[in-house]
Amino acid sequence: MALKTREDYLKSLKAMRPNVYKFGELIKDVTTHPATRRTVESHARAFDMSHDSEYADIFTTVSSFTGEKIHRWTSMMTNLEEIMYNAKLKRAMYRVTGTCAGGLCVGWNALNVMWNVTYEMDKEYGTNYQERLKKWILQAQEKGLVVAGALTDAKGDRSLRPSQQSDPDSNLRIKEVREDGIVISGFKTMICGVAASNEIFLLPGSGYREDDQDYALACVVPRDIEGLTIVETRRPSDSREYEEGFDIPETGITQAYLLFTDCFVPNERVFMCKEYKYTGKIIQYFTANYRACIGACVAGQGDVMIGAAALMARTNGLAASTFINKIIDMAINNETTYGVGIGAMALGKQHPAGCWVSDSLMAHTNKVHVATLPYETKRLCQDIGGGIVETGCFPSYKDFNDPLYGHLVQRAVKASDKFSAETRARAARLVEWLTLGAGVPGCMHGGGSPDGAKLVVRANTPIDLYAEYARKVAGITEEVPEPEKKKK
Amino acid sequence: MALKTREDYLKSLKAMRPNVYKFGELIKDVTTHPATRRTVESHARAFDMSHDSEYADIFTTVSSFTGEKIHRWTSMMTNLEEIMYNAKLKRAMYRVTGTCAGGLCVGWNALNVMWNVTYEMDKEYGTNYQERLKKWILQAQEKGLVVAGALTDAKGDRSLRPSQQSDPDSNLRIKEVREDGIVISGFKTMICGVAASNEIFLLPGSGYREDDQDYALACVVPRDIEGLTIVETRRPSDSREYEEGFDIPETGITQAYLLFTDCFVPNERVFMCKEYKYTGKIIQYFTANYRACIGACVAGQGDVMIGAAALMARTNGLAASTFINKIIDMAINNETTYGVGIGAMALGKQHPAGCWVSDSLMAHTNKVHVATLPYETKRLCQDIGGGIVETGCFPSYKDFNDPLYGHLVQRAVKASDKFSAETRARAARLVEWLTLGAGVPGCMHGGGSPDGAKLVVRANTPIDLYAEYARKVAGITEEVPEPEKKKK
Amino acid sequence: MALKTREDYLKSLKAMRPNVYKFGELIKDVTTHPATRRTVESHARAFDMSHDSEYADIFTTVSSFTGEKIHRWTSMMTNLEEIMYNAKLKRAMYRVTGTCAGGLCVGWNALNVMWNVTYEMDKEYGTNYQERLKKWILQAQEKGLVVAGALTDAKGDRSLRPSQQSDPDSNLRIKEVREDGIVISGFKTMICGVAASNEIFLLPGSGYREDDQDYALACVVPRDIEGLTIVETRRPSDSREYEEGFDIPETGITQAYLLFTDCFVPNERVFMCKEYKYTGKIIQYFTANYRACIGACVAGQGDVMIGAAALMARTNGLAASTFINKIIDMAINNETTYGVGIGAMALGKQHPAGCWVSDSLMAHTNKVHVATLPYETKRLCQDIGGGIVETGCFPSYKDFNDPLYGHLVQRAVKASDKFSAETRARAARLVEWLTLGAGVPGCMHGGGSPDGAKLVVRANTPIDLYAEYARKVAGITEEVPEPEKKKK
Amino acid sequence: MALKTREDYLKSLKAMRPNVYKFGELIKDVTTHPATRRTVESHARAFDMSHDSEYADIFTTVSSFTGEKIHRWTSMMTNLEEIMYNAKLKRAMYRVTGTCAGGLCVGWNALNVMWNVTYEMDKEYGTNYQERLKKWILQAQEKGLVVAGALTDAKGDRSLRPSQQSDPDSNLRIKEVREDGIVISGFKTMICGVAASNEIFLLPGSGYREDDQDYALACVVPRDIEGLTIVETRRPSDSREYEEGFDIPETGITQAYLLFTDCFVPNERVFMCKEYKYTGKIIQYFTANYRACIGACVAGQGDVMIGAAALMARTNGLAASTFINKIIDMAINNETTYGVGIGAMALGKQHPAGCWVSDSLMAHTNKVHVATLPYETKRLCQDIGGGIVETGCFPSYKDFNDPLYGHLVQRAVKASDKFSAETRARAARLVEWLTLGAGVPGCMHGGGSPDGAKLVVRANTPIDLYAEYARKVAGITEEVPEPEKKKK
Repeated sequence: MALKTREDYLKSLKAMRPNVYKFGELIKDVTTHPATRRTVESHARAFDMSHDSEYADIFTTVSSFTGEKIHRWTSMMTNLEEIMYNAKLKRAMYRVTGTCAGGLCVGWNALNVMWNVTYEMDKEYGTNYQERLKKWILQAQEKGLVVAGALTDAKGDRSLRPSQQSDPDSNLRIKEVREDGIVISGFKTMICGVAASNEIFLLPGSGYREDDQDYALACVVPRDIEGLTIVETRRPSDSREYEEGFDIPETGITQAYLLFTDCFVPNERVFMCKEYKYTGKIIQYFTANYRACIGACVAGQGDVMIGAAALMARTNGLAASTFINKIIDMAINNETTYGVGIGAMALGKQHPAGCWVSDSLMAHTNKVHVATLPYETKRLCQDIGGGIVETGCFPSYKDFNDPLYGHLVQRAVKASDKFSAETRARAARLVEWLTLGAGVPGCMHGGGSPDGAKLVVRANTPIDLYAEYARKVAGITEEVPEPEKKKK
Repeated sequence: MALKTREDYLKSLKAMRPNVYKFGELIKDVTTHPATRRTVESHARAFDMSHDSEYADIFTTVSSFTGEKIHRWTSMMTNLEEIMYNAKLKRAMYRVTGTCAGGLCVGWNALNVMWNVTYEMDKEYGTNYQERLKKWILQAQEKGLVVAGALTDAKGDRSLRPSQQSDPDSNLRIKEVREDGIVISGFKTMICGVAASNEIFLLPGSGYREDDQDYALACVVPRDIEGLTIVETRRPSDSREYEEGFDIPETGITQAYLLFTDCFVPNERVFMCKEYKYTGKIIQYFTANYRACIGACVAGQGDVMIGAAALMARTNGLAASTFINKIIDMAINNETTYGVGIGAMALGKQHPAGCWVSDSLMAHTNKVHVATLPYETKRLCQDIGGGIVETGCFPSYKDFNDPLYGHLVQRAVKASDKFSAETRARAARLVEWLTLGAGVPGCMHGGGSPDGAKLVVRANTPIDLYAEYARKVAGITEEVPEPEKKKK
Repeated sequence: MALKTREDYLKSLKAMRPNVYKFGELIKDVTTHPATRRTVESHARAFDMSHDSEYADIFTTVSSFTGEKIHRWTSMMTNLEEIMYNAKLKRAMYRVTGTCAGGLCVGWNALNVMWNVTYEMDKEYGTNYQERLKKWILQAQEKGLVVAGALTDAKGDRSLRPSQQSDPDSNLRIKEVREDGIVISGFKTMICGVAASNEIFLLPGSGYREDDQDYALACVVPRDIEGLTIVETRRPSDSREYEEGFDIPETGITQAYLLFTDCFVPNERVFMCKEYKYTGKIIQYFTANYRACIGACVAGQGDVMIGAAALMARTNGLAASTFINKIIDMAINNETTYGVGIGAMALGKQHPAGCWVSDSLMAHTNKVHVATLPYETKRLCQDIGGGIVETGCFPSYKDFNDPLYGHLVQRAVKASDKFSAETRARAARLVEWLTLGAGVPGCMHGGGSPDGAKLVVRANTPIDLYAEYARKVAGITEEVPEPEKKKK
Repeated sequence: MALKTREDYLKSLKAMRPNVYKFGELIKDVTTHPATRRTVESHARAFDMSHDSEYADIFTTVSSFTGEKIHRWTSMMTNLEEIMYNAKLKRAMYRVTGTCAGGLCVGWNALNVMWNVTYEMDKEYGTNYQERLKKWILQAQEKGLVVAGALTDAKGDRSLRPSQQSDPDSNLRIKEVREDGIVISGFKTMICGVAASNEIFLLPGSGYREDDQDYALACVVPRDIEGLTIVETRRPSDSREYEEGFDIPETGITQAYLLFTDCFVPNERVFMCKEYKYTGKIIQYFTANYRACIGACVAGQGDVMIGAAALMARTNGLAASTFINKIIDMAINNETTYGVGIGAMALGKQHPAGCWVSDSLMAHTNKVHVATLPYETKRLCQDIGGGIVETGCFPSYKDFNDPLYGHLVQRAVKASDKFSAETRARAARLVEWLTLGAGVPGCMHGGGSPDGAKLVVRANTPIDLYAEYARKVAGITEEVPEPEKKKK
């Protein structure tokens, strides 16, 4: 078994059935179509880095099952060091692509989480989910699969549970259980990196009760499974992806709607089938790890924002050090989401099944920061860059090259004599792309909302215990309990 | 003289020489071309509101010269009440258009500021600038002109002054002084609302010294003056303006590059010609008023963001009141920029020439808030709206209506049964447009950068006087002066 | 009628019946007792400034009743300029005393508010409250009275209204209505500047319903009225007020508990007697003006903090300009609370009765800032000052002068050779006093809590109207109302 | 060798030579004197917890040298788990004392850091410092010593280095090197927990150059060493420590000035003697660990603040859950400083000498948070508690018990009927003590200033590397280097 190359990867994508659409058009080849080739390029760089000695320790490891060298993103994370590599890989990916490569992330986390949960389910129900999962993991490692992960359902009315929705497909569900597998239908939305993935790991979108058991479902499917229609979402300035020129970078992100209609999933790919009691566990373990690691994503993008701000300062004719206080503030934001995430991992522990579970309180603390600090970092990046970057406010590539007035545009865009107008334009477009263009990842709600995270913080903050500490330091002898709720 | 109507206004625009370009194309009719018709629509609403009894007190007033009824945006602001109407008009405009209608704002401010500065220049130099200006104002009032204003130059290398630039056109300049007028050349950039304007008021971009006297220039020109090429900038998601459907609202903003090549401006339209000593005064008065009033813009857009967040909550199936704490925070941000601005006006005073000048310290304090608080308001708006708004993350109008899978997309986008999928989609696209789409105005650097504002705050904070207060309260008898700078 | 002098003022205080206690001791002479002389000194400076040409325009004005010159703090505020002088006076007072002189503030505001409310009550009930009030104001102007104001009641259980409390005196109440006056009992708490005041203006602590009509009471009483026991609260580091030396400045603030037991108030001093319907109006008008003006208090103290930070930098051996970015941030905080307050005034209007009422929404927006920004200003002040100021961390005045080791202490405290150890010590103690000592005023809850202010912001934010704006910009044709509350 | 008890500890303190002063008085017995007994009590609780099964895993461990059970605070921290116990111990201590117990912290960190640095020095210079240190550590472990640590010097003029000061004792220095030891003189300031310590670990206050070699000194001395005069600093409200009653809790903190005059330190206690080159290393290792761990201190105090806020809400008659959003914000602040610190540890590594060194960038990122977030937590605590806590604004214990009016005071302080007035008073005084009383630790400048931390962040942020990432993502082909500094 050898590590796969960029070429292997692209070939695997080309071999798939076309089922991705955008703007009403079926995308024949995701590796070349303008709407998807950028995210494929983003993911392809992970294969390059697997073979690059500078990055190999991050992007590759050894299979805990076979002892063979594998791509890191298919590995089991059984200890602190291994899960820290999840964060390191994400930060590295953002640094070289500027944005999210979801196919290297959610599926990886999902397989680790399900390793623990299948262990628990098998123990209670005598099922053999973990064995199925192991077989799948082994071939994922062998093939170097890129696996997107889908948790978020379309949801429908936010005040109702899945089984209460008027449209039963608002959330992905098991429509039929057959002897050889299950039939699934319903909608998963805003899923990152699907177009660049070989397979998709499907998990429940929330913890469910008995009524919602049809929605308790975990499995992994090929991206091109029969019955699945994938529609790419439109994102800020995404039409530029169809254009020539430098108004958009060469890397990118996609987020897709997955519309499942009666898709058959054979049993060997099914890891949960109506065991609703364990959906909460999936969410708990998944978010603990995911929200610990996501701090690395925004840190890595923040690193690129520091760099982009420096480029702008310099092409404007100034030194980056002119803005050193702002750059330090940006760096502190980056390190904070990275550091709280690492802290969550370090406070975690190994599950009896073998995979690491990060600390929930700290991971959700991090989610709150991930939903706020990058906004400040973006603001600072725009602040340093000047008016030209704030709203990407300068003429297009086409105007830049217009035979009639293009030379005037270029003279007006050029600032420091040391750098070409194009260099300044590219730097400015990068800032636009990072702060209010197609490069903006969904960090606030991606992997769950900050409000949801605050509920976890609340649940994990023992207010009564803290009140006892305070009572003792204050020398209060009376008990001071929370008042009982008044009946209305 | 009667107030003009939307029809009068559109007719006046259609009558002009086409000189606005975008994407390499000459725009024949700004009132109908997709790249410009939205900003024209934004401005046109001001004419509607001039005739709407609910808004007439804001949008119209009486000429201090003729006693005739005029559109507010051509009026002299001679007292606190009148300048407060500047803020009121801006907030009202943002509320009904969602974004910036620069042609109703900068020119208006410019003519008031120049009223004061021409008075001072005439007094020192015996020129007759104010008389020229008055004549122009009279016909502007009569015609109900929409007048953009241009201060920001292309600038070139930020570490050099205009006369030091390798490209002399980096900043707009007087190339030749003729008996009957001046010839100007050079670049103004990022100018709001030009495509919707009849004329453009040109002011210096900074305070200049003697070396830069060729750049000391104030005048007003028709938008279609010979020698002026206008290139519209590209802004986030602006390609959508060329599309059908609901992926973008019907109002909009434009920002343009003005490329002047040997344009002749007759004397009656010239209000400063090389009197560099007074460029600083222009900047001082202009920014004092402009930065006082700009708080109303972001407040008005913030009001729409509160509304958009409420729409999202409801179409998601929730009550807006679920998020009341966040909405209150948004409201506080809006009122803060509005209120500090009003405070700056109230602390200002009437110039001997007659027009009001707001308080500089307070106005620049406001600029700092305008450059930060709206970012938080946007974040809160995305927070409330959910993942669908964060990056505008759902399929396009085209996909929405695709014969093959459009019905599935619609079912996946629909949330609460009470509202159609389209209603939710429109609300989500509005949030996207407001927070990271083409509706985002340049509030941070527009009208000058927050760093520049901080310099003014610094200059107006009497640290030594405050140290004296502190010294007396502390009962310190020694003098405690700032140390002298060490010679290096 | 002539303006009063410091001497007149001190004499008036000495002439009063002693009824102020602290640490179990009756204070015989508030002008000399260590617990109260500092706040008296603070107030006395207002008399000095009334006679100081630099400050006279702020500290004096002309009576709208008599046309005679009066101390500003007894005047009617009938227009914007006059109420802006309220803010100016407060900022000036904080600058020269470093802290709160409540006797120049709350009573002044109260008499203006009651002018408007008595007008309304007289109109509805045919009472003659305004006439009574006018008579009292006239002699207050003549005598140059210093008048504290008391709104905050002891309250008792925060989840119950006054009439529901087990202790009826938890809130000040009318115990008996006699022909010639009323008998009042109950507790007002945390009242500023009482010890330095001649009289106390008593107002209801909240808007009341019919059940609570006994608590609907407004009157003004001499500070030494029979039946009133005043107990000074203990405040941070207040024991230092009993010491010699420089561990505390010469000015100060007091806050008192007012314990009323069967106090008789004659009718001519009673301006509301059970008209509960108007208690809400009092609160509304009072808070609108008070919270507009309170921004000036914290701004003035912030000015002194800037000065104190500069002193610390210099005595540490550095230039204040080393910390210019932090100083600018401090200044922006100061100007913000000042400016939003001025904005609230400018957006207000004259009541039909004659006195100005500031804008409620803006005033309460300001209250939120007053409850947060000064905390940041204090943090910055400690940041600049260094470890010695953070917790006032250096030996006491006594240790400074110890015969055995005092010289070592002084050498250890001395930093820059240019300044004595005492100068650095005094500056450091000033910062301690301002940021966590007896000089800290109660800006967060004083005049009401920020949570209460947010409720007013909420009530004044027309979410549905804003949703309409958003709906129209978005082009949504459906109505999108707030869902009805589900019945439980 | 057995663990020591509270009694052993108190006995050891009583046996020492009195050399601690406050208010001009020599403190004969630190364990009973009001100025010092509270910090002794704080430290004594660590001995109790060493014997408490609930806490024993935190407060005790096994000596890496002898395998014997020891108090944790004398242990070597050789791996991540062990250094995480440093944070856990600190958080636990703050929870049970409410404030800083410095004698359990700085000395412990110092001995670990010096273990690594002596290894490096011995290697370069052939000295035997590590062997000396090991001997001292062994008896520290055996005796269960409480060891304060002193880095901060009096410093003198902040713009000059130690050897440039006019007073050579501004920084602690080696005055003489004898065959059997060294003689030291000079001032260390603001040292925590000295009065409760057996010994003091002395380290240089900064990295020094050759000129300052006399200041390059590390050693450990008994607290009562001949020639050392210790003067306790005065802290907010510290006079209350001399009073009876509940105006102050039973635990506490002290911070001292150490005035060394010709103190002889024998060689076996000297671990650095003029090796100035390694002073930077000491600072680097020390701050990396210290600033990683200090986040736990403020988190622990923040936990008590959450508890105190809950107590206030309840004694006010409300549920703590009324303020749940603010409590969550407080919790997030606490977990953030804790988590970034843990992250710094997890990103650290073992030094070749054996002791763990945390990651510098992350540790200094944490310092910035430690200097800001607790201020917000305090503000929220005051916000929830109400006016009574904001400035500790209610009568004193003495007034509470005054025979004349004490009963009225108690009625006025009592709120909810469920709790006594004393309980509410104690809770309110606790908040005062935590937020602006004697319980406030010096978190901003303690262990170095946030500005210093930002310099480390700056030094560890590879701006040019980040600019390269940005350049590649943007597709810029030109090099974009930082401009060279212009010669002036």
